[in-house]
Amino acid sequence: MTHFRSAHDVPNIPDLIDEALAFKTDPRREVRLGEGKTLGLVFLNPSTRTRLSSQIAAQNLGLNSVVFNAGSEGWALEFADGVPMNGTTVEHIREAAAVLGQYFDIIGLRSFPSLKSREEDESEMVMNAYLKYSGKPMLSLESATLHPLQSLADLITIRERWLEKRKPRIALTWAPHMKPLPHCVANSFAQWVNAWGGADFTIAHPEGYDLDAQYTHGAHITHNQEEALEGADFVYVKNWSSLEPYGTVLPGNLDWMLTPEKLGVNTRVMHCLPVRRDLELSAAVLDSAHSIVVQQAGNRVWAAQAVLAQMLKNL
Amino acid sequence: MTHFRSAHDVPNIPDLIDEALAFKTDPRREVRLGEGKTLGLVFLNPSTRTRLSSQIAAQNLGLNSVVFNAGSEGWALEFADGVPMNGTTVEHIREAAAVLGQYFDIIGLRSFPSLKSREEDESEMVMNAYLKYSGKPMLSLESATLHPLQSLADLITIRERWLEKRKPRIALTWAPHMKPLPHCVANSFAQWVNAWGGADFTIAHPEGYDLDAQYTHGAHITHNQEEALEGADFVYVKNWSSLEPYGTVLPGNLDWMLTPEKLGVNTRVMHCLPVRRDLELSAAVLDSAHSIVVQQAGNRVWAAQAVLAQMLKNL
Amino acid sequence: MTHFRSAHDVPNIPDLIDEALAFKTDPRREVRLGEGKTLGLVFLNPSTRTRLSSQIAAQNLGLNSVVFNAGSEGWALEFADGVPMNGTTVEHIREAAAVLGQYFDIIGLRSFPSLKSREEDESEMVMNAYLKYSGKPMLSLESATLHPLQSLADLITIRERWLEKRKPRIALTWAPHMKPLPHCVANSFAQWVNAWGGADFTIAHPEGYDLDAQYTHGAHITHNQEEALEGADFVYVKNWSSLEPYGTVLPGNLDWMLTPEKLGVNTRVMHCLPVRRDLELSAAVLDSAHSIVVQQAGNRVWAAQAVLAQMLKNL
Repeated sequence: MTHFRSAHDVPNIPDLIDEALAFKTDPRREVRLGEGKTLGLVFLNPSTRTRLSSQIAAQNLGLNSVVFNAGSEGWALEFADGVPMNGTTVEHIREAAAVLGQYFDIIGLRSFPSLKSREEDESEMVMNAYLKYSGKPMLSLESATLHPLQSLADLITIRERWLEKRKPRIALTWAPHMKPLPHCVANSFAQWVNAWGGADFTIAHPEGYDLDAQYTHGAHITHNQEEALEGADFVYVKNWSSLEPYGTVLPGNLDWMLTPEKLGVNTRVMHCLPVRRDLELSAAVLDSAHSIVVQQAGNRVWAAQAVLAQMLKNL
Repeated sequence: MTHFRSAHDVPNIPDLIDEALAFKTDPRREVRLGEGKTLGLVFLNPSTRTRLSSQIAAQNLGLNSVVFNAGSEGWALEFADGVPMNGTTVEHIREAAAVLGQYFDIIGLRSFPSLKSREEDESEMVMNAYLKYSGKPMLSLESATLHPLQSLADLITIRERWLEKRKPRIALTWAPHMKPLPHCVANSFAQWVNAWGGADFTIAHPEGYDLDAQYTHGAHITHNQEEALEGADFVYVKNWSSLEPYGTVLPGNLDWMLTPEKLGVNTRVMHCLPVRRDLELSAAVLDSAHSIVVQQAGNRVWAAQAVLAQMLKNL
Repeated sequence: MTHFRSAHDVPNIPDLIDEALAFKTDPRREVRLGEGKTLGLVFLNPSTRTRLSSQIAAQNLGLNSVVFNAGSEGWALEFADGVPMNGTTVEHIREAAAVLGQYFDIIGLRSFPSLKSREEDESEMVMNAYLKYSGKPMLSLESATLHPLQSLADLITIRERWLEKRKPRIALTWAPHMKPLPHCVANSFAQWVNAWGGADFTIAHPEGYDLDAQYTHGAHITHNQEEALEGADFVYVKNWSSLEPYGTVLPGNLDWMLTPEKLGVNTRVMHCLPVRRDLELSAAVLDSAHSIVVQQAGNRVWAAQAVLAQMLKNL
């Protein structure tokens, strides 16, 4: 595996999950794999879980990591070509990324969407520019459209929790929020569940909140939350903003908040965090045995470690 | 020692001082003790000495440390229960701390008091929430009421400097400041000197600047600075804000600034730093042989290392 | 080598270049040299290349490094003596630097000029205060007047690129900018090229943009850019602000932007980065084979590693 930007970069998802669980059992089983290599962790946006879990995963592999908060510690970047740089941007991505390529063996990048132009976000302009001009393997720490390290951790968690022979029934349900959020986690979860193929998968959202069909293709899609939750073994709760018009919050739909009475006895509830209590998900659900969100966040370490291990072996 | 939040967490203070001095002699005497473990250093407030000394102490023990400036690098936190999170806070402490508990073997936390509600500050709401929801050993990097790593470094410094058989006479004296400061360093120094028991201890402050009696109990307390300084071997200088009304600066008392003529020939002057020159302490004192503030700051490394070593042995 | 603040601190520049190139060939050839030592990287200003390359260089030497963004993570500093600190500065440099001296074996410091007072900037007040009060070896990460790690990387790059027996012809040319920038990179490059002595060296700038003669002495100086570029093997492009009046942008001179038609067939173009495209240097030059700016930035690692190695050997 050279790059890790989406499920399509992964040769074999079940194998990657197995590798992650092997690291969870024995974190230091390949403690010299990263020796003499350096991972750059470049953050254009805030991050908690990704920031911390990536550093720990690198450490477990003997891989040096350097965090660079490019927004606050570096220079304002220009992405447009053909424009004289006589304004507020100090460095062009062509130089900025090429320089990172000189320093790092693998570049991890977090770059949120603007939610202003769907076309620009879907082009993955920022991540592709870093990849192109750095010339180095790219590890997505969440991009404009996807969050693959999260999705891998999600599947690891489902794999740990699901011991029956039949396929689990997984529902991804939209949840209310008062701010327009990216589609990344939802797009990515849908893409990975579909690529994995090990589940019966339903997606529920109000009208106007479609996800891009390239990610959801293969799932059953409904505007009826109750229908989606019926018999679900795992319910993944997540807000995202509208697709058309792009990046807005449509009025209403507050009753899509997930509450205990909507859940079956054994239903497990997932969320990528951070979660808005009593807005997306009721506190009563989060504080109950239904919730596996903390286990899910913990698995971010093993997801990152398995991915980094495969990338290091490919260097 | 599981947690390190106050003198009460320490089984034996003289032993801990001895251990710190052994590390000062040979910093890498237990360089593999922390192997494969990770210390999270979570800062909700600025820090210089604590930030740097903790990282060096961890390194000396082979302990991986990850700094997390939770304020600027992470998400705004909610501490209240039962409130729908539809405002500016993005993540609840219940999830935030639980996730840190997944990543770190020991959690170091800096969390200043608000100085708005005495009851809330004295409840140590923030530190207790991190401890409760992370489920991990807690290393205080200064909390709402105490600063135990500072106090341990203070006692190490006194131990190094005091070679006579009789008990040293220690005076803690309030000093002027124009901003309302926390009581942590003063509370904590009083608590540790009393718990240690190796000194004759006097505390001097103007009227209105009482410290909480649970920390000062055992010390002689006076409103007369001259009386406290008379014959003192060590003078600890520190400002703190008023207790009632809580967290304010009362007018006057500028003559409490420590100046050379207030000192005996061999008196040693201590301060936790940062210090306001010519407001708390005259520059003439700081630049004289009376001052041991730099040695004191240097001992922060060995204090942190001794504490981390005991916590690691208890994991 | 005890300190590294200018070319004058270097006993032998060609040897240092050789050492850097040896590290480029085998980065981990002295991987235990820094064991048990700690480098403090103190940033009073933003930094990308210096920040990242120093950390990687330290790692390659087994040297622990701790980044301290003193501006955002620490306390506001006072540099003036004899002033009561009852304003916005929280800690005096006398204590702040002395404490860093307790924690670090080598102190790296980035401190830009104010560009307000030439006298103050030329006194290197900030760096000298850190050096004096810390008592530790000082590694300049760019100071008020010089940027020696950059200049060493520049010479390494010229050395790699120049295989002929005759001395290369090097031109340093001023370039337009709309903000007043420090003189450091230009001063430093001039100082190093002159101290190295391996080149025919010309400096070109518009009237009013003189550099301090102590750095340029030995170079041919002209106000005619065309004359300087004529026959140049290497063209170093850089903006700096006026010397008298100090630190301003004089009107005009936009035609000093370097464009392809100004270059000979084999001329190599250098810049320290970040560079303003189509203002200092045309994009057509940067995107052509003339440009060696990325190689130059990459060599920052080996420059830092060679310098740190010599400083470590002197501890």
